[in-house]
Amino acid sequence: MGQVSDAREKLIASALELMHARSYADVGVQELCEHADVRKGSFYHFFPSKGDLTLAALDCQWEMLKAAVLEPVFSKRLPPLKRIGRFFEMLYKQQCAAKGRTGKVLGCPFGNLGLELSTQEEPIRRKVNGVFRELAGYFERALRDAVAAGDLPDQDCRATAHMLVAYLEGVSLMAKTSNDLAMAKGLAGGVARLLAAGAAPQRKVAGRK
Amino acid sequence: MGQVSDAREKLIASALELMHARSYADVGVQELCEHADVRKGSFYHFFPSKGDLTLAALDCQWEMLKAAVLEPVFSKRLPPLKRIGRFFEMLYKQQCAAKGRTGKVLGCPFGNLGLELSTQEEPIRRKVNGVFRELAGYFERALRDAVAAGDLPDQDCRATAHMLVAYLEGVSLMAKTSNDLAMAKGLAGGVARLLAAGAAPQRKVAGRK
Repeated sequence: MGQVSDAREKLIASALELMHARSYADVGVQELCEHADVRKGSFYHFFPSKGDLTLAALDCQWEMLKAAVLEPVFSKRLPPLKRIGRFFEMLYKQQCAAKGRTGKVLGCPFGNLGLELSTQEEPIRRKVNGVFRELAGYFERALRDAVAAGDLPDQDCRATAHMLVAYLEGVSLMAKTSNDLAMAKGLAGGVARLLAAGAAPQRKVAGRK
Repeated sequence: MGQVSDAREKLIASALELMHARSYADVGVQELCEHADVRKGSFYHFFPSKGDLTLAALDCQWEMLKAAVLEPVFSKRLPPLKRIGRFFEMLYKQQCAAKGRTGKVLGCPFGNLGLELSTQEEPIRRKVNGVFRELAGYFERALRDAVAAGDLPDQDCRATAHMLVAYLEGVSLMAKTSNDLAMAKGLAGGVARLLAAGAAPQRKVAGRK
């Protein structure tokens, strides 16, 4: 049983590595099996299809991100806005490490698969959407704490949290399409602006014709 | 010659429609030819590969966006911040129309292909990156006009312009993965926040440990 369980884990690790570096469509079952050193029979023992492996891989990636980054960084021991800042710093470091290994900015594994597949693979769209909602939950709790501490003006913290997730995903996309992490670093200032909740320009943008 | 030139245009139109609704990888040359009602020989007469058709399709999409949306919306006759607000409104309407046709939020055709292909198809990555730079140029000119008119505090308008493109792409991504345009509408308030250039929370997020 040890070996069989090992095959499942190796397939998931291969899916995460290969799909993050390329795309869902570009990585086939044959290549996944070869990369994981697992026979095709084992693949289909665990996963009815590549889509099912991808769902398991996304779950695994999310659990790893929660354990290694989100839970420590969003600890109540840190000041609330510091948690958010630290989270963006850690993602930036992860992207730097990935670029060091591959020579390329790989972007967000959830955003990549979500944008590639959302109109085609409904279970994957739902999974990615669920991840973004959970991630927004971490932001939202930190924002509520920041408002309670007087570090931010009172606001719709859920809406702000979703803006932060959108901005994070947009910065990841721009970093990948520019293959340039310096740009991602420069864009980090946008997080502070989203937190500022400036009301005056909003009136101007949405003003009467 | 009329018919030959027609085949090229039909292939480009088919690539835009099918790839926007699904993905680059999911749409093959055979299907593109059938959808466009063009023979394979004609395809390869115009395009050495699907990648080359895609580059031509991205050029075509960008020229259409410039002519139909960017040039009129970023006209000097509109107040500078109104231009940016109007642009986001028009993109939102386009997304609503696409959802009405297909039942799905399709997202940004440039962001979709850029995120799917940037690590695999360098010419497409460069093309998408060029589109984002040109788009940021429209924002940047409007922002400079806004600063000159006293509608915004003085700032690094190029950096703000890139933040706006990143946010736009992130909102498109979230709209697609949630298959929900109401969310995209709610996220629009983030644009005003990015324009507000709030300095105080920036110090807090980046503050000392």
